[in-house]
Amino acid sequence: MPETMLLDSICSPEDIKGLSYDDTAVLCSQIRERLISVTAKNGGHLASNLGVVELTVALHRVFDSPKDKIVFDVGHQCYTHKLLTGRGGEFASVRTEGGLSGFPKPTESVHDPVICGHSSTSISVACGLAKAKALSGEEGFVIAVIGDGALTGGLAYEGLNNAGRELKNFIVVLNDNKMSISKNVGAVARYLAVMRSKTSYVRFKNRLAKFSGSIPLVGKKLRGAMFRSKRALKNAIYKSTLFENMGFAYLGPVDGHNQKLLEQTLSLAKTLNRPVIIHACTHKGKGYPFAEKHPRVFHGVGGFDIETGEPKISGDSYSDVFGRTMCELAESDPKLCAVTAAMKAGTGLNDFSLKFNDRFFDCGIAEQHAVTFCGGLAAGGMNPVFAVYSSFIQRSYDQIIHDAAIAGLNVTIAVDRAGIVGEDGETHQGIFDCAMFNSVPGVSIYTPALFSELSEFTKRAVNESGVAVVRYPRGGECSLGDDFVPSFEAFDFIGEKGAQALLVTYGRISANAAKACELLREKGISCALLKLNRVRPIDPKCYEAAKASQLVYFFEEGILQGGICCSFSQGLHQHGFGGIYRVRAIDDTFVPQASVASSLASLGLSAEKMADAVETELKNGK
Amino acid sequence: MPETMLLDSICSPEDIKGLSYDDTAVLCSQIRERLISVTAKNGGHLASNLGVVELTVALHRVFDSPKDKIVFDVGHQCYTHKLLTGRGGEFASVRTEGGLSGFPKPTESVHDPVICGHSSTSISVACGLAKAKALSGEEGFVIAVIGDGALTGGLAYEGLNNAGRELKNFIVVLNDNKMSISKNVGAVARYLAVMRSKTSYVRFKNRLAKFSGSIPLVGKKLRGAMFRSKRALKNAIYKSTLFENMGFAYLGPVDGHNQKLLEQTLSLAKTLNRPVIIHACTHKGKGYPFAEKHPRVFHGVGGFDIETGEPKISGDSYSDVFGRTMCELAESDPKLCAVTAAMKAGTGLNDFSLKFNDRFFDCGIAEQHAVTFCGGLAAGGMNPVFAVYSSFIQRSYDQIIHDAAIAGLNVTIAVDRAGIVGEDGETHQGIFDCAMFNSVPGVSIYTPALFSELSEFTKRAVNESGVAVVRYPRGGECSLGDDFVPSFEAFDFIGEKGAQALLVTYGRISANAAKACELLREKGISCALLKLNRVRPIDPKCYEAAKASQLVYFFEEGILQGGICCSFSQGLHQHGFGGIYRVRAIDDTFVPQASVASSLASLGLSAEKMADAVETELKNGK
Repeated sequence: MPETMLLDSICSPEDIKGLSYDDTAVLCSQIRERLISVTAKNGGHLASNLGVVELTVALHRVFDSPKDKIVFDVGHQCYTHKLLTGRGGEFASVRTEGGLSGFPKPTESVHDPVICGHSSTSISVACGLAKAKALSGEEGFVIAVIGDGALTGGLAYEGLNNAGRELKNFIVVLNDNKMSISKNVGAVARYLAVMRSKTSYVRFKNRLAKFSGSIPLVGKKLRGAMFRSKRALKNAIYKSTLFENMGFAYLGPVDGHNQKLLEQTLSLAKTLNRPVIIHACTHKGKGYPFAEKHPRVFHGVGGFDIETGEPKISGDSYSDVFGRTMCELAESDPKLCAVTAAMKAGTGLNDFSLKFNDRFFDCGIAEQHAVTFCGGLAAGGMNPVFAVYSSFIQRSYDQIIHDAAIAGLNVTIAVDRAGIVGEDGETHQGIFDCAMFNSVPGVSIYTPALFSELSEFTKRAVNESGVAVVRYPRGGECSLGDDFVPSFEAFDFIGEKGAQALLVTYGRISANAAKACELLREKGISCALLKLNRVRPIDPKCYEAAKASQLVYFFEEGILQGGICCSFSQGLHQHGFGGIYRVRAIDDTFVPQASVASSLASLGLSAEKMADAVETELKNGK
Repeated sequence: MPETMLLDSICSPEDIKGLSYDDTAVLCSQIRERLISVTAKNGGHLASNLGVVELTVALHRVFDSPKDKIVFDVGHQCYTHKLLTGRGGEFASVRTEGGLSGFPKPTESVHDPVICGHSSTSISVACGLAKAKALSGEEGFVIAVIGDGALTGGLAYEGLNNAGRELKNFIVVLNDNKMSISKNVGAVARYLAVMRSKTSYVRFKNRLAKFSGSIPLVGKKLRGAMFRSKRALKNAIYKSTLFENMGFAYLGPVDGHNQKLLEQTLSLAKTLNRPVIIHACTHKGKGYPFAEKHPRVFHGVGGFDIETGEPKISGDSYSDVFGRTMCELAESDPKLCAVTAAMKAGTGLNDFSLKFNDRFFDCGIAEQHAVTFCGGLAAGGMNPVFAVYSSFIQRSYDQIIHDAAIAGLNVTIAVDRAGIVGEDGETHQGIFDCAMFNSVPGVSIYTPALFSELSEFTKRAVNESGVAVVRYPRGGECSLGDDFVPSFEAFDFIGEKGAQALLVTYGRISANAAKACELLREKGISCALLKLNRVRPIDPKCYEAAKASQLVYFFEEGILQGGICCSFSQGLHQHGFGGIYRVRAIDDTFVPQASVASSLASLGLSAEKMADAVETELKNGK
């Protein structure tokens, strides 16, 4: 405890402004210790947070939050920010049910301007905040902190293009750690690599030193004028034509772990009275050797042993099975390609990328491009599969419609992290993909529950014409009991036909529904389970089977409105079902962080809650 | 007729390769004549097509389609391409039912690699096609033709970032006409303006001349090597650091109406063996004085008088009413902002942009940024309204969820061109917005049918907390008859309670449903109309009202799957409706071009078809 005494004394950003650089170094070290100990227990985005400790401290020493607004792109690197803005006491609760969010959240603190969790939004959000400030006559800066990975997303470019126009008091800090979640790709990444070459570094540092004596306290206006007009100061900066062409003043590259240099650079940026981009180079995982060595492993981690750096072991996952299936398919199908948007490891494609390197494409955090690129591959005769997390495929809705489905191109989308994801909370839940794909003409959606089904339905999707989707959850396999033998058909009907109650569901929670059936049978209620393996189109036989039951109850681990349960409702009407139809799904709400099991229980989707719901309904219906 | 004899003799791109430059000039002139005469009658994208006549001719003379693949971004500038690729004979049918599409379509011709109609997709599509070529060992170039407007979309940047890596035989032609649909905006637009300065022009032209003698027939390899290594040739090109930093060789700027220079430049690009961007400057509307003078008016036009340039007059539109309402609201609400994505005139915001210039934002073709920017504005205390076409808001699904709805920010989306749009066909139909917004927690969706309702519900949406949507069709007001007095409530119930049949619908086709009710009454069938004015959330009173009818028939001018009709189905089950429920909507299909009335009839959504459907169902139900 005494080791973090300085950190524990920090209640607000004001408390760090007066610290000496020596004390600041002590503070940074204590912050790192806290980051490591808490994420070892709770899991979280360790590596990226370790990388921005000095940067975050510098931001809060040079700027005045909340008058100045700091927008962290993606948001998962906000832990130090939380520690410095009055949330240190609750920090042990980060990413737990009812605790602090792992992302910025305005309801937690006035220092968090917006909620975020997805990549590449910060510049656009900051534009809006800056414009609102200007229109309201409010003072203060708006600062977007964005990683080089997030810069591969088109939205960031749209933001830069619009911000580079006229905004004053607008600063973009490019946190360049040379990788997004996976290793960074693309032309801009190569460009940044050139910029951060040793010479550029030294040049910037030396020249800045000459001008930094009186910053930030005096001569702001003068300095600003000098910068704009004099070659001397202009030359102080290594010219970055890419960003300057976009309308920004470029400062850097600067060592993102050199506290003094960082603060001098931020202070200089404050004086320029025009949009500024600061290129800060940081090391992902800085200060924890295991994370420095394996930044990818420690990007998002589910808890680990501090001494050994060993992550908590988790067994085979749906992603692993998907990856193996893809390798298998690629052996016999020379047209098969795998595409990912900076999620190679997360989607289980490491092996594929090694074995079939020429048919593997990591597009960076560019989900729109990934789908449209797949459309091009398919139009050129290839058989592309885009593997992506459910909550990120939301970004490709138009591309799925316009660049794949309209022409009926053979594009397969493998949707990982479908359904409740747990500790990442609202922004990352995979609860919209079914509703989204449901609305797109001609799409098939497969919803395996077991590993064997995932493998089989991936093969089917890949070999099907048109757009096909396979969606599956995060983590380990659910169990449908030893007796269950998958049919690999469009649905499995488990139990007696004509049972009093028919439970309908798909995907992972089929296991809960199967257990609910057992619980109900123990109470003497006859029931059956209709497990949908393909939720679009729904096999009409499902409706015929359902007609024999008095009560049909649809449980869906996804949004209700526009979800499969609504289509099923319509199908029942169409087929003349005369009984009671009830649905339980995520009803017009977002789902906060909690363990998956706890979230499912809160949503009424645990076995017990399902059984209760059916029992109650049967009583009411009588 | 004799005036287009040369054009009429062209059956394939091969036929133009041998023409002299003089003959090519004659051909271009005949093409222009054809473009003007056909669009004067059929309507269409005249100005942009007139701008790329020489460019398209040059592409087909220098490259070998379909071995070389030409992808037109947005696609609406493909008319010359159609005339040169064997579709001249059918060209008079462009944009009519059963006729040629106004956009590229692979089912029409092998010269159209993909369907497109939305902006900024071409580079990503071309990437996919080029990679497919490389993997299949196929020869040939892939050329993306993209406007400066389309370059404001983030997807284009994602494409550039990924293409600039390793693709050979990959050429991007930047068709710079200094405006997208509205005047172009943003940092990149300013940058392009600098690039196209007179000096750059002249410099490129003079230097190219030195090296163009033998191109394209001899010395390709040598020239390529020279270009890569020698300062001499490098200096022949006006260096564009923006695109070069992205990994492209930059050639230009070149006069896009100088046939010889264009062809020399394209030929040079073929020799470079690396990704090339050619900056061609064109004049929108070139060759038709009225279109040159008013390129915005002649961007997409609904027919006009060739002699006077007068567009066919259309009366007051929903867009006009929306624009007036916004001006009215802005007078009393100093926080109200209007945001558009390059559709200022189209969405009726011209007046607003003049009267409230500081609160008007045109973001370019950047729908993602527009929504996220609105999120920032709202978080900063402003009251933003994003006016956008239905088919383009598809591009903002993730931003609506992540950057607006999760935090319940006060963002209003005004969805113009909702429902069937007519002659633009598949890619532009506004049939997905209801399903899309339906799935987003907390969103309200208003669906006015009359101008007075649009005005009223816009006011309500703007003053409501959270994300609110108002959606309305293209064109003039529909009629619900003189007797109808709008209630401005969540729904209007028109007719007798407890009628045999209840027709349910929303928006423009409420007029058809009202007429269908008349037709049915004439046949002695008692019926009523439930006109939903807010389709999300649906007022539970609607279900109570519906329960009194034997047959409830929902008609929806939108996609069935995930649509409002499915939510209504679920609501009926929930409220214990025991009758027959039927839906007629756009069932798992895309809708091709035709007049709006004809499309609605084909979809069974004309008054007559609705009445037939109800009558048939009542007979069957008995």
